[in-house]
Amino acid sequence: MKIFETATAPNPRRVRIFLAEKGLLDKVEFVQVDLLKGENLTPEYAAKNPMKKVPVLELDDGTCVAETMAICRYFEEAYPDTPTLLGDTPLEKAQVEQWLRWLEFFFFMPTGMCFQHTSGYFKDRMNPIKEWGEECRTTVEKFCHFLNKHLADKEYICCDRYTAADINAFTTLQFGRVVNIRIKDDQTHLQAWYERMKARPTSKV
Amino acid sequence: MKIFETATAPNPRRVRIFLAEKGLLDKVEFVQVDLLKGENLTPEYAAKNPMKKVPVLELDDGTCVAETMAICRYFEEAYPDTPTLLGDTPLEKAQVEQWLRWLEFFFFMPTGMCFQHTSGYFKDRMNPIKEWGEECRTTVEKFCHFLNKHLADKEYICCDRYTAADINAFTTLQFGRVVNIRIKDDQTHLQAWYERMKARPTSKV
Repeated sequence: MKIFETATAPNPRRVRIFLAEKGLLDKVEFVQVDLLKGENLTPEYAAKNPMKKVPVLELDDGTCVAETMAICRYFEEAYPDTPTLLGDTPLEKAQVEQWLRWLEFFFFMPTGMCFQHTSGYFKDRMNPIKEWGEECRTTVEKFCHFLNKHLADKEYICCDRYTAADINAFTTLQFGRVVNIRIKDDQTHLQAWYERMKARPTSKV
Repeated sequence: MKIFETATAPNPRRVRIFLAEKGLLDKVEFVQVDLLKGENLTPEYAAKNPMKKVPVLELDDGTCVAETMAICRYFEEAYPDTPTLLGDTPLEKAQVEQWLRWLEFFFFMPTGMCFQHTSGYFKDRMNPIKEWGEECRTTVEKFCHFLNKHLADKEYICCDRYTAADINAFTTLQFGRVVNIRIKDDQTHLQAWYERMKARPTSKV
Protein backbone atom coordinates (compact mmCIF):
# COMPACT_ATOMS: atom_id res chain seq x y z
CA MET A 1 0.00 0.00 0.00
CA LYS A 2 1.05 3.58 -0.61
CA ILE A 3 0.05 6.83 1.05
CA PHE A 4 0.59 9.99 -0.98
CA GLU A 5 1.20 12.75 1.52
CA THR A 6 3.08 15.88 2.46
CA ALA A 7 5.06 15.18 5.62
CA THR A 8 4.74 18.74 6.97
CA ALA A 9 0.97 19.08 6.40
CA PRO A 10 -1.42 18.46 9.30
CA ASN A 11 -3.85 15.99 7.70
CA PRO A 12 -1.18 13.43 6.74
CA ARG A 13 0.23 13.75 10.25
CA ARG A 14 -3.11 12.67 11.73
CA VAL A 15 -2.95 9.51 9.60
CA ARG A 16 0.69 8.79 10.52
CA ILE A 17 0.02 9.05 14.26
CA PHE A 18 -3.10 6.89 13.84
CA LEU A 19 -1.04 4.22 12.06
CA ALA A 20 1.81 4.48 14.57
CA GLU A 21 -0.60 3.94 17.49
CA LYS A 22 -1.83 0.79 15.74
CA GLY A 23 1.70 -0.39 14.95
CA LEU A 24 0.90 -0.30 11.23
CA LEU A 25 3.36 2.33 9.93
CA ASP A 26 5.50 -0.33 8.23
CA LYS A 27 2.53 -1.60 6.17
CA VAL A 28 2.66 1.55 4.07
CA GLU A 29 5.08 3.19 1.65
CA PHE A 30 4.88 6.98 2.01
CA VAL A 31 5.23 9.01 -1.19
CA GLN A 32 5.84 12.75 -0.83
CA VAL A 33 3.75 15.28 -2.77
CA ASP A 34 4.99 18.89 -2.98
CA LEU A 35 1.89 21.08 -2.50
CA LEU A 36 3.63 24.39 -3.12
CA LYS A 37 4.94 23.12 -6.45
CA GLY A 38 1.38 21.99 -7.23
CA GLU A 39 2.24 18.31 -7.57
CA ASN A 40 -1.28 17.64 -6.27
CA LEU A 41 -2.83 19.57 -9.16
CA THR A 42 -1.70 17.28 -11.98
CA PRO A 43 -4.18 15.07 -13.88
CA GLU A 44 -2.35 11.98 -12.53
CA TYR A 45 -2.92 13.09 -8.96
CA ALA A 46 -6.53 14.17 -9.63
CA ALA A 47 -7.18 10.63 -10.90
CA LYS A 48 -6.28 9.40 -7.39
CA ASN A 49 -8.20 12.18 -5.61
CA PRO A 50 -10.46 14.49 -7.62
CA MET A 51 -10.38 16.95 -4.68
CA LYS A 52 -6.58 17.20 -5.15
CA LYS A 53 -5.81 17.02 -1.42
CA VAL A 54 -3.34 15.00 0.64
CA PRO A 55 -3.31 12.32 1.92
CA VAL A 56 -4.52 9.56 -0.41
CA LEU A 57 -4.28 5.84 0.32
CA GLU A 58 -3.59 3.64 -2.71
CA LEU A 59 -4.24 -0.06 -2.18
CA ASP A 60 -2.15 -2.68 -4.00
CA ASP A 61 -4.88 -3.14 -6.63
CA GLY A 62 -4.78 0.59 -7.42
CA THR A 63 -8.02 1.49 -5.56
CA CYS A 64 -7.65 4.92 -3.97
CA VAL A 65 -9.26 6.27 -0.79
CA ALA A 66 -8.98 9.98 -0.05
CA GLU A 67 -9.77 11.89 3.14
CA THR A 68 -7.85 11.54 6.40
CA MET A 69 -10.61 9.97 8.48
CA ALA A 70 -11.69 7.62 5.68
CA ILE A 71 -8.11 6.33 5.50
CA CYS A 72 -8.08 5.92 9.29
CA ARG A 73 -11.43 4.10 9.10
CA TYR A 74 -9.96 1.70 6.55
CA PHE A 75 -7.12 0.70 8.87
CA GLU A 76 -9.44 0.52 11.90
CA GLU A 77 -11.70 -1.95 10.09
CA ALA A 78 -9.09 -3.88 8.11
CA TYR A 79 -6.84 -4.56 11.13
CA PRO A 80 -9.27 -5.47 13.93
CA ASP A 81 -6.50 -6.95 16.10
CA THR A 82 -4.81 -3.56 16.56
CA PRO A 83 -5.81 -1.07 19.31
CA THR A 84 -9.15 0.52 18.38
CA LEU A 85 -9.04 4.30 18.05
CA LEU A 86 -12.60 4.91 16.81
CA GLY A 87 -14.49 3.24 19.68
CA ASP A 88 -15.63 -0.30 20.48
CA THR A 89 -19.34 -0.30 21.36
CA PRO A 90 -22.06 1.45 19.32
CA LEU A 91 -22.17 4.25 21.92
CA GLU A 92 -18.39 4.67 21.97
CA LYS A 93 -18.23 4.76 18.17
CA ALA A 94 -20.91 7.46 18.19
CA GLN A 95 -19.12 9.42 20.91
CA VAL A 96 -15.78 9.30 19.08
CA GLU A 97 -17.54 10.42 15.89
CA GLN A 98 -19.25 13.28 17.72
CA TRP A 99 -15.89 14.48 18.96
CA LEU A 100 -14.18 13.98 15.59
CA ARG A 101 -16.84 16.16 14.01
CA TRP A 102 -16.66 18.85 16.68
CA LEU A 103 -12.87 18.87 16.33
CA GLU A 104 -13.15 19.02 12.55
CA PHE A 105 -15.77 21.78 12.34
CA PHE A 106 -14.86 24.01 15.29
CA PHE A 107 -11.10 23.41 15.59
CA PHE A 108 -9.22 21.85 12.67
CA MET A 109 -11.08 23.40 9.75
CA PRO A 110 -11.19 26.94 11.17
CA THR A 111 -7.47 26.65 11.99
CA GLY A 112 -6.81 25.67 8.38
CA MET A 113 -9.07 28.42 7.07
CA CYS A 114 -7.44 30.99 9.34
CA PHE A 115 -4.11 29.91 7.85
CA GLN A 116 -5.29 29.93 4.23
CA HIS A 117 -7.26 33.17 4.47
CA THR A 118 -4.76 35.23 6.48
CA SER A 119 -1.37 33.96 5.24
CA GLY A 120 -1.96 34.01 1.49
CA TYR A 121 -0.09 30.67 1.30
CA PHE A 122 -2.32 29.34 -1.51
CA LYS A 123 -3.27 32.68 -3.04
CA ASP A 124 -2.31 31.38 -6.50
CA ARG A 125 -5.24 28.92 -6.32
CA MET A 126 -7.85 30.49 -4.04
CA ASN A 127 -9.44 33.80 -3.06
CA PRO A 128 -8.32 34.63 0.52
CA ILE A 129 -10.87 36.62 2.57
CA LYS A 130 -9.02 38.06 5.54
CA GLU A 131 -12.16 38.91 7.54
CA TRP A 132 -13.28 35.27 7.30
CA GLY A 133 -9.82 34.08 8.38
CA GLU A 134 -10.02 36.25 11.50
CA GLU A 135 -13.56 35.03 12.24
CA CYS A 136 -12.16 31.48 12.11
CA ARG A 137 -9.44 32.45 14.59
CA THR A 138 -12.19 33.47 17.04
CA THR A 139 -13.91 30.09 16.56
CA VAL A 140 -10.65 28.27 17.33
CA GLU A 141 -9.97 30.34 20.43
CA LYS A 142 -13.48 29.65 21.73
CA PHE A 143 -12.99 25.94 21.14
CA CYS A 144 -9.70 25.96 23.07
CA HIS A 145 -11.59 27.50 25.99
CA PHE A 146 -14.29 24.80 25.75
CA LEU A 147 -11.69 22.03 25.48
CA ASN A 148 -9.82 23.33 28.52
CA LYS A 149 -12.99 23.18 30.64
CA HIS A 150 -13.89 19.76 29.24
CA LEU A 151 -10.47 18.35 30.20
CA ALA A 152 -10.66 19.61 33.80
CA ASP A 153 -11.55 16.12 35.05
CA LYS A 154 -10.49 13.92 32.13
CA GLU A 155 -7.26 12.31 31.04
CA TYR A 156 -8.45 11.86 27.45
CA ILE A 157 -11.02 13.65 25.30
CA CYS A 158 -13.58 10.84 25.26
CA CYS A 159 -14.29 7.21 26.19
CA ASP A 160 -11.80 7.39 29.12
CA ARG A 161 -8.97 6.31 26.87
CA TYR A 162 -6.78 7.43 23.99
CA THR A 163 -8.76 7.73 20.72
CA ALA A 164 -8.51 9.44 17.35
CA ALA A 165 -10.12 12.47 19.03
CA ASP A 166 -6.90 12.96 21.01
CA ILE A 167 -4.83 12.62 17.83
CA ASN A 168 -6.91 15.20 15.98
CA ALA A 169 -6.96 17.71 18.82
CA PHE A 170 -3.21 17.32 19.37
CA THR A 171 -2.26 17.77 15.73
CA THR A 172 -4.61 20.75 15.42
CA LEU A 173 -2.99 22.50 18.38
CA GLN A 174 0.46 21.97 16.86
CA PHE A 175 -0.79 23.20 13.47
CA GLY A 176 -2.31 26.27 15.18
CA ARG A 177 1.16 27.67 15.76
CA VAL A 178 1.37 28.71 12.09
CA VAL A 179 -1.35 31.28 12.80
CA ASN A 180 -0.04 32.01 16.29
CA ILE A 181 -2.86 30.21 18.10
CA ARG A 182 -1.44 28.80 21.32
CA ILE A 183 -2.70 27.38 24.60
CA LYS A 184 -3.25 30.35 26.94
CA ASP A 185 -1.51 30.52 30.33
CA ASP A 186 -4.76 29.98 32.23
CA GLN A 187 -5.76 26.92 30.12
CA THR A 188 -3.96 24.59 32.50
CA HIS A 189 -6.10 21.49 31.83
CA LEU A 190 -5.56 21.78 28.11
CA GLN A 191 -1.83 22.30 28.68
CA ALA A 192 -1.57 19.25 30.94
CA TRP A 193 -3.43 17.09 28.41
CA TYR A 194 -1.19 18.45 25.63
CA GLU A 195 1.93 17.46 27.58
CA ARG A 196 0.53 13.95 28.07
CA MET A 197 -0.10 13.64 24.33
CA LYS A 198 3.34 15.00 23.50
CA ALA A 199 4.95 12.43 25.79
CA ARG A 200 3.56 9.52 23.73
CA PRO A 201 6.24 7.85 21.59
CA THR A 202 4.03 8.27 18.50
CA SER A 203 3.77 12.06 18.80
CA LYS A 204 6.88 12.66 16.67
CA VAL A 205 6.02 10.63 13.56
CA MET B 1 -34.92 7.41 22.96
CA LYS B 2 -35.49 11.02 22.00
CA ILE B 3 -34.12 13.14 19.19
CA PHE B 4 -34.18 16.88 19.71
CA GLU B 5 -34.49 18.41 16.28
CA THR B 6 -35.97 21.08 14.07
CA ALA B 7 -38.11 19.40 11.43
CA THR B 8 -37.39 21.99 8.72
CA ALA B 9 -33.58 22.05 9.21
CA PRO B 10 -31.37 19.98 6.89
CA ASN B 11 -29.24 18.10 9.46
CA PRO B 12 -32.20 16.54 11.31
CA ARG B 13 -33.65 15.57 7.95
CA ARG B 14 -30.52 13.54 7.14
CA VAL B 15 -31.03 11.60 10.39
CA ARG B 16 -34.77 11.04 9.74
CA ILE B 17 -34.17 9.63 6.26
CA PHE B 18 -31.33 7.46 7.62
CA LEU B 19 -33.68 6.06 10.29
CA ALA B 20 -36.54 5.63 7.80
CA GLU B 21 -34.30 3.61 5.45
CA LYS B 22 -33.45 1.34 8.38
CA GLY B 23 -37.08 1.06 9.49
CA LEU B 24 -36.18 2.58 12.86
CA LEU B 25 -38.23 5.81 12.88
CA ASP B 26 -40.64 4.41 15.46
CA LYS B 27 -37.84 3.74 17.96
CA VAL B 28 -37.47 7.46 18.56
CA GLU B 29 -39.61 10.25 19.98
CA PHE B 30 -38.90 13.50 18.11
CA VAL B 31 -38.90 16.69 20.18
CA GLN B 32 -39.03 20.00 18.27
CA VAL B 33 -36.56 22.81 19.05
CA ASP B 34 -37.32 26.30 17.69
CA LEU B 35 -33.98 27.67 16.45
CA LEU B 36 -35.25 31.14 15.57
CA LYS B 37 -36.63 31.56 19.09
CA GLY B 38 -33.22 30.40 20.36
CA GLU B 39 -34.53 27.34 22.20
CA ASN B 40 -31.17 25.73 21.40
CA LEU B 41 -29.30 28.47 23.27
CA THR B 42 -30.65 27.73 26.76
CA PRO B 43 -28.42 26.21 29.49
CA GLU B 44 -30.68 23.10 29.48
CA TYR B 45 -30.06 22.54 25.79
CA ALA B 46 -26.33 23.32 26.05
CA ALA B 47 -26.10 20.57 28.69
CA LYS B 48 -27.25 18.13 25.98
CA ASN B 49 -25.05 19.64 23.28
CA PRO B 50 -22.46 22.28 24.19
CA MET B 51 -22.29 23.25 20.50
CA LYS B 52 -26.01 24.18 20.70
CA LYS B 53 -26.90 22.57 17.37
CA VAL B 54 -29.68 20.22 16.28
CA PRO B 55 -30.10 17.27 16.22
CA VAL B 56 -29.19 15.60 19.52
CA LEU B 57 -29.94 11.98 20.38
CA GLU B 58 -30.81 11.35 24.03
CA LEU B 59 -30.67 7.71 25.12
CA ASP B 60 -33.02 6.38 27.80
CA ASP B 61 -30.32 6.71 30.45
CA GLY B 62 -29.88 10.40 29.61
CA THR B 63 -26.62 10.02 27.65
CA CYS B 64 -26.58 12.50 24.77
CA VAL B 65 -24.91 12.18 21.38
CA ALA B 66 -24.70 15.25 19.16
CA GLU B 67 -23.77 15.55 15.48
CA THR B 68 -25.81 14.13 12.62
CA MET B 69 -23.35 11.49 11.45
CA ALA B 70 -22.50 10.40 15.01
CA ILE B 71 -26.21 9.77 15.59
CA CYS B 72 -26.40 7.83 12.32
CA ARG B 73 -23.32 5.84 13.34
CA TYR B 74 -25.01 4.91 16.62
CA PHE B 75 -28.02 3.43 14.82
CA GLU B 76 -25.82 1.71 12.22
CA GLU B 77 -23.86 -0.05 14.95
CA ALA B 78 -26.66 -0.65 17.49
CA TYR B 79 -29.04 -2.22 14.94
CA PRO B 80 -26.82 -4.51 12.85
CA ASP B 81 -29.82 -6.38 11.40
CA THR B 82 -31.06 -3.30 9.53
CA PRO B 83 -29.85 -2.33 6.03
CA THR B 84 -26.30 -0.94 6.31
CA LEU B 85 -25.91 2.62 5.05
CA LEU B 86 -22.26 3.22 6.02
CA GLY B 87 -20.69 0.28 4.15
CA ASP B 88 -20.06 -3.39 4.92
CA THR B 89 -16.40 -4.24 4.25
CA PRO B 90 -13.42 -2.16 5.45
CA LEU B 91 -13.01 -0.74 1.93
CA GLU B 92 -16.70 0.11 1.60
CA LYS B 93 -16.74 1.77 5.01
CA ALA B 94 -13.74 3.86 3.95
CA GLN B 95 -15.33 4.73 0.61
CA VAL B 96 -18.60 5.82 2.23
CA GLU B 97 -16.64 7.91 4.71
CA GLN B 98 -14.60 9.50 1.90
CA TRP B 99 -17.84 10.53 0.20
CA LEU B 100 -19.49 11.68 3.40
CA ARG B 101 -16.54 13.94 4.03
CA TRP B 102 -16.44 15.31 0.47
CA LEU B 103 -20.17 15.96 0.68
CA GLU B 104 -19.76 17.61 4.07
CA PHE B 105 -16.80 19.85 3.18
CA PHE B 106 -17.51 20.75 -0.45
CA PHE B 107 -21.31 20.57 -0.59
CA PHE B 108 -23.31 20.63 2.66
CA MET B 109 -21.17 23.00 4.72
CA PRO B 110 -20.65 25.58 1.97
CA THR B 111 -24.39 25.46 1.23
CA GLY B 112 -25.07 26.15 4.91
CA MET B 113 -22.42 28.89 5.02
CA CYS B 114 -23.78 30.48 1.85
CA PHE B 115 -27.18 30.56 3.55
CA GLN B 116 -25.90 31.92 6.87
CA HIS B 117 -23.53 34.48 5.36
CA THR B 118 -25.80 35.83 2.61
CA SER B 119 -29.30 35.64 4.16
CA GLY B 120 -28.59 37.17 7.57
CA TYR B 121 -30.88 34.48 9.08
CA PHE B 122 -28.75 34.14 12.26
CA LYS B 123 -27.35 37.68 12.28
CA ASP B 124 -28.37 38.07 15.95
CA ARG B 125 -25.79 35.41 16.88
CA MET B 126 -23.06 35.51 14.21
CA ASN B 127 -21.09 37.89 12.01
CA PRO B 128 -22.18 37.29 8.38
CA ILE B 129 -19.45 37.91 5.76
CA LYS B 130 -21.17 38.20 2.41
CA GLU B 131 -18.02 37.73 0.33
CA TRP B 132 -17.37 34.41 2.10
CA GLY B 133 -20.99 33.35 1.51
CA GLU B 134 -20.58 33.98 -2.23
CA GLU B 135 -17.27 32.09 -2.28
CA CYS B 136 -19.11 29.14 -0.74
CA ARG B 137 -21.75 29.35 -3.47
CA THR B 138 -18.97 28.89 -6.06
CA THR B 139 -17.70 25.83 -4.16
CA VAL B 140 -21.19 24.28 -4.19
CA GLU B 141 -21.68 24.96 -7.89
CA LYS B 142 -18.32 23.35 -8.69
CA PHE B 143 -19.26 20.31 -6.64
CA CYS B 144 -22.58 19.96 -8.50
CA HIS B 145 -20.59 19.89 -11.73
CA PHE B 146 -18.26 17.20 -10.32
CA LEU B 147 -21.19 15.15 -9.00
CA ASN B 148 -22.96 15.31 -12.36
CA LYS B 149 -19.89 13.89 -14.12
CA HIS B 150 -19.41 11.27 -11.40
CA LEU B 151 -23.00 10.04 -11.81
CA ALA B 152 -22.77 9.65 -15.60
CA ASP B 153 -22.36 5.88 -15.26
CA LYS B 154 -23.61 5.24 -11.73
CA GLU B 155 -27.00 4.65 -10.17
CA TYR B 156 -25.77 5.60 -6.67
CA ILE B 157 -22.93 7.77 -5.37
CA CYS B 158 -20.77 4.92 -4.10
CA CYS B 159 -20.55 1.16 -3.41
CA ASP B 160 -23.08 0.44 -6.22
CA ARG B 161 -25.98 0.76 -3.80
CA TYR B 162 -27.91 3.25 -1.73
CA THR B 163 -25.82 4.62 1.18
CA ALA B 164 -25.75 7.59 3.53
CA ALA B 165 -23.80 9.42 0.80
CA ASP B 166 -26.99 9.46 -1.30
CA ILE B 167 -29.00 10.74 1.67
CA ASN B 168 -26.56 13.57 2.34
CA ALA B 169 -26.26 14.65 -1.28
CA PHE B 170 -30.05 14.54 -1.74
CA THR B 171 -30.82 16.58 1.38
CA THR B 172 -28.10 19.09 0.49
CA LEU B 173 -29.56 19.64 -2.99
CA GLN B 174 -33.00 20.26 -1.48
CA PHE B 175 -31.51 22.61 1.13
CA GLY B 176 -29.65 24.47 -1.66
CA ARG B 177 -32.93 25.95 -2.87
CA VAL B 178 -32.90 28.43 0.04
CA VAL B 179 -29.89 30.10 -1.60
CA ASN B 180 -31.19 29.47 -5.12
CA ILE B 181 -28.67 26.74 -5.93
CA ARG B 182 -30.35 24.29 -8.32
CA ILE B 183 -29.38 21.51 -10.69
CA LYS B 184 -28.51 23.14 -14.02
CA ASP B 185 -30.31 22.11 -17.24
CA ASP B 186 -27.22 20.42 -18.66
CA GLN B 187 -26.55 18.41 -15.44
CA THR B 188 -28.72 15.55 -16.68
CA HIS B 189 -26.98 12.76 -14.73
CA LEU B 190 -27.38 14.65 -11.47
CA GLN B 191 -31.01 15.36 -12.31
CA ALA B 192 -31.74 11.69 -13.12
CA TRP B 193 -30.10 10.57 -9.87
CA TYR B 194 -32.06 13.23 -7.97
CA GLU B 195 -35.34 11.94 -9.42
CA ARG B 196 -34.41 8.39 -8.37
CA MET B 197 -33.73 9.57 -4.82
CA LYS B 198 -36.95 11.61 -4.73
CA ALA B 199 -38.95 8.53 -5.79
CA ARG B 200 -37.89 6.59 -2.68
CA PRO B 201 -40.69 6.30 -0.10
CA THR B 202 -38.35 7.69 2.59
CA SER B 203 -37.62 10.94 0.77
CA LYS B 204 -40.56 12.78 2.35
CA VAL B 205 -39.88 12.13 6.04
